[in-house]
Amino acid sequence: MGSAVAAIAARREFFEAMVVADYDPARAARALPAADPRFAAAAVDASDQAAIEALIAEHRITHVLNAVDPRFVLPIFAAAQSAGVDYLDMAMSLSAPHPTEPYRQVGTALGEAQFAAEPAWKDAGRLALVGMGVEPGLSDVFARYAADHLFSEIDEIGIRDGANLVVTGDDGEPIFAPSFSIWTTIEECLNPPVVYEAGRGWFTTEPFSEPEIFDFPADIGPVECVNVEHEEVLLIPRWVGAKRVTFKYGLGAEFIGVLKTLHQLGLDRTTPVRVGGVEVSPRDVVAACLPDPATLGDRMSGKTCAGTWVTGTGVDGRPREVYLHHVVDNAWTMAEYGAQAVVWQTAVNPVVALELLASGVWSGTGVLGPEAFDAVPFLDLLTAYGSPWGIREA
Amino acid sequence: MGSAVAAIAARREFFEAMVVADYDPARAARALPAADPRFAAAAVDASDQAAIEALIAEHRITHVLNAVDPRFVLPIFAAAQSAGVDYLDMAMSLSAPHPTEPYRQVGTALGEAQFAAEPAWKDAGRLALVGMGVEPGLSDVFARYAADHLFSEIDEIGIRDGANLVVTGDDGEPIFAPSFSIWTTIEECLNPPVVYEAGRGWFTTEPFSEPEIFDFPADIGPVECVNVEHEEVLLIPRWVGAKRVTFKYGLGAEFIGVLKTLHQLGLDRTTPVRVGGVEVSPRDVVAACLPDPATLGDRMSGKTCAGTWVTGTGVDGRPREVYLHHVVDNAWTMAEYGAQAVVWQTAVNPVVALELLASGVWSGTGVLGPEAFDAVPFLDLLTAYGSPWGIREA
Repeated sequence: MGSAVAAIAARREFFEAMVVADYDPARAARALPAADPRFAAAAVDASDQAAIEALIAEHRITHVLNAVDPRFVLPIFAAAQSAGVDYLDMAMSLSAPHPTEPYRQVGTALGEAQFAAEPAWKDAGRLALVGMGVEPGLSDVFARYAADHLFSEIDEIGIRDGANLVVTGDDGEPIFAPSFSIWTTIEECLNPPVVYEAGRGWFTTEPFSEPEIFDFPADIGPVECVNVEHEEVLLIPRWVGAKRVTFKYGLGAEFIGVLKTLHQLGLDRTTPVRVGGVEVSPRDVVAACLPDPATLGDRMSGKTCAGTWVTGTGVDGRPREVYLHHVVDNAWTMAEYGAQAVVWQTAVNPVVALELLASGVWSGTGVLGPEAFDAVPFLDLLTAYGSPWGIREA
Repeated sequence: MGSAVAAIAARREFFEAMVVADYDPARAARALPAADPRFAAAAVDASDQAAIEALIAEHRITHVLNAVDPRFVLPIFAAAQSAGVDYLDMAMSLSAPHPTEPYRQVGTALGEAQFAAEPAWKDAGRLALVGMGVEPGLSDVFARYAADHLFSEIDEIGIRDGANLVVTGDDGEPIFAPSFSIWTTIEECLNPPVVYEAGRGWFTTEPFSEPEIFDFPADIGPVECVNVEHEEVLLIPRWVGAKRVTFKYGLGAEFIGVLKTLHQLGLDRTTPVRVGGVEVSPRDVVAACLPDPATLGDRMSGKTCAGTWVTGTGVDGRPREVYLHHVVDNAWTMAEYGAQAVVWQTAVNPVVALELLASGVWSGTGVLGPEAFDAVPFLDLLTAYGSPWGIREA
């Protein structure tokens, strides 16, 4: 993800310097765009708050963009807060299920630990722009756009994500290879999905609930989607009025089966098990057995679609139903940036946001989601980055 | 498996002493029947041929019964050969797929490494009785019985294994918990299944080939069975004439789905992967995540059935079809022996064989399968152990 951010940012003029940090300094160095003196590599342990603070001080960082997996949200977030700099991420602090009614009530919500720090961020006059990838991120921007420009009243905001990406093996046959971090995908899909309803607030359901076939644009077509725990459901109701907010992921029947089996066998667990003389997290072993999603771009084909489906009453007072969407073709992202589609689509949005913050078009203090800002300049700048969005009326 | 062997043998008089050896001496000690001075515990590394030879010498062992998983067949087999003692096992040396046509041709067959040592065993006048559990084992005895007493000509001998065992979790709901070593089950089910046909010899197919619904006796009923690599297919044609020999395992659709997913994700692999700072075999991690099958007996209910289905021409010259079978109820094995049904059913057969060898009713030299011996005394003695077999005419 960091490599794609660097490749996208390298084409822009809005920043003076960008430090790409990784646990493995060689990996950080490989992410640096060629012949661009604005970029530097550094080594850092993302679980070590003090080390991150030292890195911020050493390079006089003004904005920390967290591009690692959500296990490391809190130390990076706390380091930015402590160092008094602005912060962005693409996924929020992890949830914990309700101790007695996990499939009915929210326990600790996604991002709850970050919103708890809201007063301190506001007092310090600093901004934590949370959930600023594609989903959450662009999907939240779409929700704000719909509320401001398309609807007078919103019944439901449903994020819908689907793709027709296929990865082929050495023999040219399709292979099983998730296009995004399996660690995060397991976390999202096996946690109790969260749903928001006005009057009732946030509640949870069984995993894979409310299956529906959603017809995606471009040539993706119909995909089976199910409820999944995702930040948008927590973020959108804070700034956008809607009677219901959901997130459904187009996993498809095969992938749902794989996730159910991993859960059934306990292979989704993150607590270590003893194997021979060592201790390992089963979920880390699953991830180690699968190819690194970031390396799959040249064996992948197809498109991925992120978007926000909105129903309600249009500004003209008549019923309206739209799907605001952003489709990315893997062939294009590979040719232009050498990044696979899902990674590129996630990475482009925080770069757009950084540019809006750098120019002052977006500004704010506290812990804010993307829907707290004006959607139009964001969508215009995304289009200027060469990646237009679309709208489908039902 | 060793604990069940000891518990069963403790009720018999045919031996002077039995040493239960394990990598973990405390585990060996726990397997000793109470207040029976014939039993002793020892520590041994089953992968260390010299250590096994030393153990044989120390205790003046006459028969080595290998009751560990098939990865350790060769060092134990070689140690017995080198020490000049008799040997029994319940699974044979592992196969390796054909390098270019794994789903058509046999590469290295199950037991091939053991049969290669046949001349040396014969020269030494010592017996290696291989595949002497329930399947292989009792199933091979059934095949010999059918050939000697029921048929004048055999068309097909098909081993068919099915169960209705259910394991319940702490909340009383059924949980996923294989009743036999998952390591061995993965090995059996994902290796190319082997089939024997007179004239063509041994050949392999794709995993899970030739699905059929087989109606099992007792109250087990119909279960989906598929071809699986198993020793009987290699053993039976060496001693019993048949036009076709197969092994089909009643895995059921759910378990077949689990195995396919493990394979798809590479979690069936035994070669280590790097996870953080350590290296582990993914298959060992899968096993570590599941409950130890030997500990499930008191949470298990139902019956397991092993048997041999035979079609051909009866001794009266008319078409005949029979299913010779052995059904074990988990409630009975738990009450009688404190062992779960599948473990007990596997363990009882080598004890019966040891008793027949001790009494001289069975004798032989070389590397022999169970079907090389007279079936009747075996089946009679099994019944005398309290566990009768049955026959169903089609």
